[in-house]
Amino acid sequence: MRKQLPAMEMQNHFAPRGGKTEVEEGLEFAPKFDRDGLIAAMALDAVTREPLMLAYMNEEALRRTLEIGEAVYWSRSRQEFWHKGATSGHIQKIVEIRTDCDQDALVLLVEQIGAGACHTGRNSCFYRKVIGAEGGGSAKLEAIGREKSFDPAAVYGKQ
Amino acid sequence: MRKQLPAMEMQNHFAPRGGKTEVEEGLEFAPKFDRDGLIAAMALDAVTREPLMLAYMNEEALRRTLEIGEAVYWSRSRQEFWHKGATSGHIQKIVEIRTDCDQDALVLLVEQIGAGACHTGRNSCFYRKVIGAEGGGSAKLEAIGREKSFDPAAVYGKQ
Repeated sequence: MRKQLPAMEMQNHFAPRGGKTEVEEGLEFAPKFDRDGLIAAMALDAVTREPLMLAYMNEEALRRTLEIGEAVYWSRSRQEFWHKGATSGHIQKIVEIRTDCDQDALVLLVEQIGAGACHTGRNSCFYRKVIGAEGGGSAKLEAIGREKSFDPAAVYGKQ
Repeated sequence: MRKQLPAMEMQNHFAPRGGKTEVEEGLEFAPKFDRDGLIAAMALDAVTREPLMLAYMNEEALRRTLEIGEAVYWSRSRQEFWHKGATSGHIQKIVEIRTDCDQDALVLLVEQIGAGACHTGRNSCFYRKVIGAEGGGSAKLEAIGREKSFDPAAVYGKQ
């Protein structure tokens, strides 16, 4: 799944969490992982800025991402590393990674390789918008006109 | 904090979680909240698509957001509703809310009112990029050239 297995000393290290000013204004990367050891990562298309998907990384997934230059997430449902595109070929090449003021979230600007980011066959996982019910009632979803760009059964070999 | 307090029957309701096909292909809004009752919400500038901030909503915050058309988050640090801009005036007017395939994440396309989204005084919370260390070592951050657009001490009344 990873292109090469770097020796320990070849790995990226992250700084320990400092005080508020250090975290917010400093140039040490000290990502904050939640109690499950995860940090949220929002992938945007680097060119169009289309929101593609939101997933999570643990420390090792983030390290691998930095080392191979492709998005590696931690799958919460499968509890395993998830090198995005390893099955489908729809790899996300990292153009830039940003972190936020308190360093507990990431934005990935990526070059999405292949037909799309979403396992449902669409370019983006965010293919529906929420329509609130005026004056109460059930909020609904509305498709935003993103047709399936690939056949997930063909790509993933299952429905 | 909210513009008006709707009676129970005036509130937006969310659907119970259905099966995989319903959740992924259906048009019922059935957001999935994590074990803390939260869902991640990534705010992007609706026009420039600049990533602004990533925060969390609980069910009631999401409902209020739909009802007042402005972003209302749940502050994990303060454990309270956080009507973004209530203190600073830097309100986020909702242009569109999208959800993802499994409906456990939100993207907010917003009109950011005022000087910025970030409490540090910047337009966006994502003002630094991560620079991986080639061949190992400490990953670093680099400012992406976003100067402070307002003085947080003046706006929030404290440093």
